[in-house]
Amino acid sequence: MTNLLGEFFGTAVLIVFGSGVVANVLLKKSKAEGAGWIVITAGWAFGVIMGVFCAIAAGAPQADLNPAVTLAKTLMGVYTVPHAVATMLAELAGAFTGAVIVWLAFLPHWEITEDQGAKLGIFCTGPAIRNYSANLLCEIIGTVILIVPIFAIFSKAVGGIAQGLGPYLVGILVWGIGLSLGGPTGYAINPARDLGPRLAHAVLPIPGKGGSDWSYAWVPIVGPFIGAIIAYFIGKTFGLI
Amino acid sequence: MTNLLGEFFGTAVLIVFGSGVVANVLLKKSKAEGAGWIVITAGWAFGVIMGVFCAIAAGAPQADLNPAVTLAKTLMGVYTVPHAVATMLAELAGAFTGAVIVWLAFLPHWEITEDQGAKLGIFCTGPAIRNYSANLLCEIIGTVILIVPIFAIFSKAVGGIAQGLGPYLVGILVWGIGLSLGGPTGYAINPARDLGPRLAHAVLPIPGKGGSDWSYAWVPIVGPFIGAIIAYFIGKTFGLI
Amino acid sequence: MTNLLGEFFGTAVLIVFGSGVVANVLLKKSKAEGAGWIVITAGWAFGVIMGVFCAIAAGAPQADLNPAVTLAKTLMGVYTVPHAVATMLAELAGAFTGAVIVWLAFLPHWEITEDQGAKLGIFCTGPAIRNYSANLLCEIIGTVILIVPIFAIFSKAVGGIAQGLGPYLVGILVWGIGLSLGGPTGYAINPARDLGPRLAHAVLPIPGKGGSDWSYAWVPIVGPFIGAIIAYFIGKTFGLI
Amino acid sequence: MTNLLGEFFGTAVLIVFGSGVVANVLLKKSKAEGAGWIVITAGWAFGVIMGVFCAIAAGAPQADLNPAVTLAKTLMGVYTVPHAVATMLAELAGAFTGAVIVWLAFLPHWEITEDQGAKLGIFCTGPAIRNYSANLLCEIIGTVILIVPIFAIFSKAVGGIAQGLGPYLVGILVWGIGLSLGGPTGYAINPARDLGPRLAHAVLPIPGKGGSDWSYAWVPIVGPFIGAIIAYFIGKTFGLI
Repeated sequence: MTNLLGEFFGTAVLIVFGSGVVANVLLKKSKAEGAGWIVITAGWAFGVIMGVFCAIAAGAPQADLNPAVTLAKTLMGVYTVPHAVATMLAELAGAFTGAVIVWLAFLPHWEITEDQGAKLGIFCTGPAIRNYSANLLCEIIGTVILIVPIFAIFSKAVGGIAQGLGPYLVGILVWGIGLSLGGPTGYAINPARDLGPRLAHAVLPIPGKGGSDWSYAWVPIVGPFIGAIIAYFIGKTFGLI
Repeated sequence: MTNLLGEFFGTAVLIVFGSGVVANVLLKKSKAEGAGWIVITAGWAFGVIMGVFCAIAAGAPQADLNPAVTLAKTLMGVYTVPHAVATMLAELAGAFTGAVIVWLAFLPHWEITEDQGAKLGIFCTGPAIRNYSANLLCEIIGTVILIVPIFAIFSKAVGGIAQGLGPYLVGILVWGIGLSLGGPTGYAINPARDLGPRLAHAVLPIPGKGGSDWSYAWVPIVGPFIGAIIAYFIGKTFGLI
Repeated sequence: MTNLLGEFFGTAVLIVFGSGVVANVLLKKSKAEGAGWIVITAGWAFGVIMGVFCAIAAGAPQADLNPAVTLAKTLMGVYTVPHAVATMLAELAGAFTGAVIVWLAFLPHWEITEDQGAKLGIFCTGPAIRNYSANLLCEIIGTVILIVPIFAIFSKAVGGIAQGLGPYLVGILVWGIGLSLGGPTGYAINPARDLGPRLAHAVLPIPGKGGSDWSYAWVPIVGPFIGAIIAYFIGKTFGLI
Repeated sequence: MTNLLGEFFGTAVLIVFGSGVVANVLLKKSKAEGAGWIVITAGWAFGVIMGVFCAIAAGAPQADLNPAVTLAKTLMGVYTVPHAVATMLAELAGAFTGAVIVWLAFLPHWEITEDQGAKLGIFCTGPAIRNYSANLLCEIIGTVILIVPIFAIFSKAVGGIAQGLGPYLVGILVWGIGLSLGGPTGYAINPARDLGPRLAHAVLPIPGKGGSDWSYAWVPIVGPFIGAIIAYFIGKTFGLI
């Protein structure tokens, strides 16, 4: 039960930083307006670090914050299927909550920002070039490159000091994925990170918002789950898990 | 007594870096003029790290550097109320001192910088959109997101290696808050950080300075204190403290 | 045998991040288009960190990911010559594989990017000013500055905590080399990193690609190998190895 | 004797990164041309980290790389006066050597860069606004803010894990000084860092170079030495040393 609470809590913290940094860069009159890709990717990375610490401290030592990671660990036998599903729902609820908090933190900035795409982009990902099979492939690759190094960092072959700083290193990993692979689809690599805030976008009274682009919403769900399965097999093949 | 000295000292170091980086980016002819949000937020973050190390080394193991953090720890029973008030005043005095040092470091640059808002912004925060209730809410959220992860990093569930690097991780946390939530109000999230340098701005003979915007000064004091109380209850709820 | 597999695997991960970040910054319509040098150098650095962790976890504790590093360690007696050659070929195959993955991740972006030089630059390095002897010298210096600090970080005189975070520190080192010495030749400093993706560029069906600039290809192979030999002698002279 | 060799060696590595990053950003046709303040300050920071590791590994456990730090430690009794003078000269020789290596790494770029100030700025610091007393004050403050946190990081009150990563944290410190206080004078904060490369600028056959601005050269020597003495007294006052 503390596991579910911790996953909820940590994912909320992750999204406060993650959706927050996109809001900070995209919303009009924000002091960080136009701050660019290094800022966006760093904000997400530091959100991962802090979300993981919060989840661990709240009693969720796995600190997945990501249903794709939870799926990979379910294949490893860490979770039973019902436990995995509950964990994923806790992550989704946390992501939704984090997005609501971001909406509140930037309250006067929504009205003065006209760009509907920018407002949507604060909540969820969208493709640079809409091509579902290519977008799906990009999300699959990004998620593999997320989960495989997580397996490596926490493998037996890597020493205890690196693992003591594991949450920090996972943040650096997510920073790297954003820097290197984030351009085509905005690197969801996490179904809860995309769906939770997309739901928040749909229900919150955001002035002048457009649609929530539900036609794309399956890509950042299906892609990461496929990526998790592939990552599991790569992890087995190379002896990481 | 070394606790008060250490808090004074560490907060002065924090503000030398923090007000310093804003001066570096905003003052005319500075080699870092216009360097942007990544520079500003990184400067504040590294100031936190160094301020905390200085405070610890000078005999203040709590190394709060922030009356809101001191308030949260008072609720936890770390400080008596008189001790807490004295600690907050030491932090305020340190922040004032740090701002004076920044004024000295950039001495020939004040006169050639015409923008009064820029000169004030080096010392204290101001809202991107003036809306006291929204600004207050933003400072409350920012402070919650500061103090809750601090609880997490130093919780029992997180290992000793992360805590040995706790000052570094708290710096990364503050970097993240600036990146993700700093746009609407300039992320004071610390009453001393704002009031101390604002007092320095009011009394220092800065050429061509404008007013010190005292009508806003209560927001970055009241907001962080409210945030500290909320963070305390979240910390209790999720078992972080 | 796990050593070869690990070097293959880690080098592939390195190149996914490394070629990935250049693609992310240079390809048209990428969300990171034009993000600049800090992004490119950070992406390569984080790729080194994750590649090294993956190689270690997969059973290659040396985690060279670089034939120049392998050569230096062969001079130190870590590898026999046949083992070194096999390791280098595994690194080359990994680099090729990583480049193919990057091509897939950015699939719809190749066609809309007209600049042939940009498309080639995602795969392999090229000189800012074509001057073979100067370019060779720059690659030699860069590789010396790579391998000598690696010797230092893992030397007996440096404590265990730094070595436990050795992969992270080597990433910071590569970040520094890119920031400080990367401008004249694009800092290959690794024969596999350049030749593997150059081969991928030559064989992949990239729309509108130009030639693979084979006339330059020897520089980022010969330069790093010469640098490795010099680094070995510097390491011996200063007692690092 | 290994101490002198190590200080020579580590300071050379520091300057390869430090002068290198300025060359990378300022020289024409460099791939990093115009990359900005975050790149310059990061390059110097990572040079400090790698220089310190190299010095330690080469038998100089103090790893000062800076005559001002050496002076502060002489006041603390770490060095005898003759040993301190020899150490400072080793650091100066290392800085000169590092600058020569940077000149070689960027060989074809000097001729095509017309700006004499840029070419000088790669080697040594200069004031944004020439005002000797203000410039001196800025260098004093910068050096105090360098040495005092070094005292703190390596103080008894700070735990062993932070000290095991001390070289990394000192790099972060130097990054912060550049970000926050580097604008008025270019943050020499180290007499060897300025004088060694200035001598290299004076003697190297750099095409189209201007004067070496010897009238300013005393500021980044005298300022850091005064700062070191003040830092020593602050360290004593606050119990850091």
